[in-house]
Amino acid sequence: MAAWMNEYGDVAAHPSQDVDLDALAAAAADLRSRLRDNYPFHHPRYAAQMLKPPHPAAVIGYVTAMLVNPNNHALDGGPATAALEKDVVAQLAAMFGFPEAPRHLGHLTSSGTIANLEALFVARETHPGKAIAHSADAHYTHARMAHLLGIESVAVPSTADGTMDLDALEALLGAGRVGTVVATAGSTGLGAVDPVHEILAIARRHGVRVHVDAAYGGFFRLIADDRPDGIAAAPFLAISDCDSVVIDPHKHGLQPYGCGAVIFRDPGVAQHYLHDSPYTYFTSDDLHLGEISIECSRAGAAAAALWLTLRLLPLTPDGLGAVLRPGRRAALDWARRIEESDELRLFQPPQLDIVTYLPARDRLSEVDAVSAAVMAAGMARPPADSLFLATYGVDAAALAARGHPVEADVPTGRILRSVLMKPESEAAVPWLHEQLLGLL
Amino acid sequence: MAAWMNEYGDVAAHPSQDVDLDALAAAAADLRSRLRDNYPFHHPRYAAQMLKPPHPAAVIGYVTAMLVNPNNHALDGGPATAALEKDVVAQLAAMFGFPEAPRHLGHLTSSGTIANLEALFVARETHPGKAIAHSADAHYTHARMAHLLGIESVAVPSTADGTMDLDALEALLGAGRVGTVVATAGSTGLGAVDPVHEILAIARRHGVRVHVDAAYGGFFRLIADDRPDGIAAAPFLAISDCDSVVIDPHKHGLQPYGCGAVIFRDPGVAQHYLHDSPYTYFTSDDLHLGEISIECSRAGAAAAALWLTLRLLPLTPDGLGAVLRPGRRAALDWARRIEESDELRLFQPPQLDIVTYLPARDRLSEVDAVSAAVMAAGMARPPADSLFLATYGVDAAALAARGHPVEADVPTGRILRSVLMKPESEAAVPWLHEQLLGLL
Repeated sequence: MAAWMNEYGDVAAHPSQDVDLDALAAAAADLRSRLRDNYPFHHPRYAAQMLKPPHPAAVIGYVTAMLVNPNNHALDGGPATAALEKDVVAQLAAMFGFPEAPRHLGHLTSSGTIANLEALFVARETHPGKAIAHSADAHYTHARMAHLLGIESVAVPSTADGTMDLDALEALLGAGRVGTVVATAGSTGLGAVDPVHEILAIARRHGVRVHVDAAYGGFFRLIADDRPDGIAAAPFLAISDCDSVVIDPHKHGLQPYGCGAVIFRDPGVAQHYLHDSPYTYFTSDDLHLGEISIECSRAGAAAAALWLTLRLLPLTPDGLGAVLRPGRRAALDWARRIEESDELRLFQPPQLDIVTYLPARDRLSEVDAVSAAVMAAGMARPPADSLFLATYGVDAAALAARGHPVEADVPTGRILRSVLMKPESEAAVPWLHEQLLGLL
Repeated sequence: MAAWMNEYGDVAAHPSQDVDLDALAAAAADLRSRLRDNYPFHHPRYAAQMLKPPHPAAVIGYVTAMLVNPNNHALDGGPATAALEKDVVAQLAAMFGFPEAPRHLGHLTSSGTIANLEALFVARETHPGKAIAHSADAHYTHARMAHLLGIESVAVPSTADGTMDLDALEALLGAGRVGTVVATAGSTGLGAVDPVHEILAIARRHGVRVHVDAAYGGFFRLIADDRPDGIAAAPFLAISDCDSVVIDPHKHGLQPYGCGAVIFRDPGVAQHYLHDSPYTYFTSDDLHLGEISIECSRAGAAAAALWLTLRLLPLTPDGLGAVLRPGRRAALDWARRIEESDELRLFQPPQLDIVTYLPARDRLSEVDAVSAAVMAAGMARPPADSLFLATYGVDAAALAARGHPVEADVPTGRILRSVLMKPESEAAVPWLHEQLLGLL
């Protein structure tokens, strides 16, 4: 970019922004030192929350654009990165089987929360006065954003595999107060995938809108092929007929935070966003992304990072799909080892790449105490010997429903949970399992 | 960070994420080529919208943390960057004169829009059923976010300097339906600063909450000293007694997008955010920032970038304040030159670093046509000879109120507008003005 910048002629940097280079080096060293108080998201030892570093291509794309600092709000602020954003959103829409632009409407957001907020906002505007239904295992943001929007939200009970109970949904929609169902594909806790195809059929019978929260699971569309190391196809294939979908490239899309996306099947929902501003949108009559987004300033760098990444790892089974498959195999392999062990129980079979498991104990208080102790002990080890796991809160009823009867001597307790979203996790499963057993 | 990463032991990268280095180089070159379709935000030739590149310290801080990719939602995702976020928010709160933590509550957001949404959400929760008032010149996000929140919003007329009309406010608050007033310091269009101190006095008499949208102008607090190259002190000093304030470090804080912030004077508003999640917030009982934020995943890198920048350019008149003062002087100097010219008229005196001006013409249609032509002609020149200006929509009444009688032969028209937020603008004003005259 330096050559491009220089075309505009030299400019003497103003001294007010000068900093002492030794002071900068010292402060940067201090920052690096402070960042050591972190978890090794990059390493297979980290088998805890849904975190991993971005792909180098994403870093290169992000930094290249960040040096210019375009704002994708208006074409006046970022014509080049707005074009890149339209390109990557079209790729995401195509992955879900949506018709080509302009027969869909979508944009990037800074997070899945904001993407879901926009989807629920459009749901409210298209079905005014009606409630939002989501499963009890859906991300808590739905209830929270519904509250923000002044919409009633209803939690549909979950089945024993953590997905929406269809009989309960049918009964709820029959009562007529719900305007939109949120299907989760898959849940951020358990990686459970709601039966989107069946939810869609029920919703359509009742004239109800369907939004799919695929913030976590969306990229699994690339390996939704019913193969042994793939995942169930039907729920993901049905997304193409739903009204809106949210996906977070900063989860399985190899991007740094914040990069979410929302896509609507009907481009006509743009009417709910329309507004005008006295000082933007002037350089062009083309679509300014700020006209179809509730956020204003947004980093063009996020679009550049995703665009460059998808150039190298396209949204195909052999491209980005090949990055997801090892994590899926890792989850299946670890689940099998856990099932075969005496010391551990598999909470439920993994549907994506998240494994949940618990120490074999008779009382919930013991399950909780041992889980917490194992998590703490793994993290307390020296780095080269460490193991990082996460926990997940359950009650005895949720355990019993999955065939793990425990005495409910406390209302809730923690079990263990591992998100295996790094392809490196696959090779690590044998020692992940062995180290886990050693910590029990 | 590589040394820290290596402490956890070698890990063979999975081949699915490998990319051909020649293909990466070619794609990155293509990205750089596409980014040439941009505006030279870095150069004083760019005297248009509020855009400029981040400070190198911000880039270093952002990239360093991005390589780890922490998530400031929960301490489980980013303990180090959450600590940095608490540190920088404390610095911002101190700049506004708020009491020390824990006697305020605040966090970073991905944008000013979300920061303002949170402030209005808390306003709704604390004053249920009441409307939001803002000036007619306030950012359009307030009316939009009020609609999102299901709150009535009322635009208070602006005076001839683009600030809130206090008599109109007094009358409105007397009617009793408003629960919160948004004071703008300063407006993103004109850089006009509402009289926060007077608004606060009126609001307090009526038991009304005061939120200050200082997304654009907040850092001017550092030079709010009534000096010739500073700005009026009273509105900014009064922020310390208001209920909440929003500031965007990605505007005058030298940060890349997206970095906003919201700060509440009463830490008790945390109750409106509270929620629980079955799988986060486990590693610590300390405050997880996701517990007091409506966003979930958020880039820890944004906090690291701001922290490193403020280490080198602290929130003092001699630190970051010295970066703002040249832009202020540039605006005053250019305004004087425009006033002394025959071909141009100054729309209104600049209160911050934004200058608005128009070609001397008798009819609004001519003002509009010449303004648009000047903007287009400046951008059409070769880079080394270019000039980038922005436009701003007005009507004849707004012009007449400021002493520029024009014939209202069209309902609205464009005038010219320049945000001089780069310190390099100061040295450039003579040729900015000369080139502008050459384009008329």
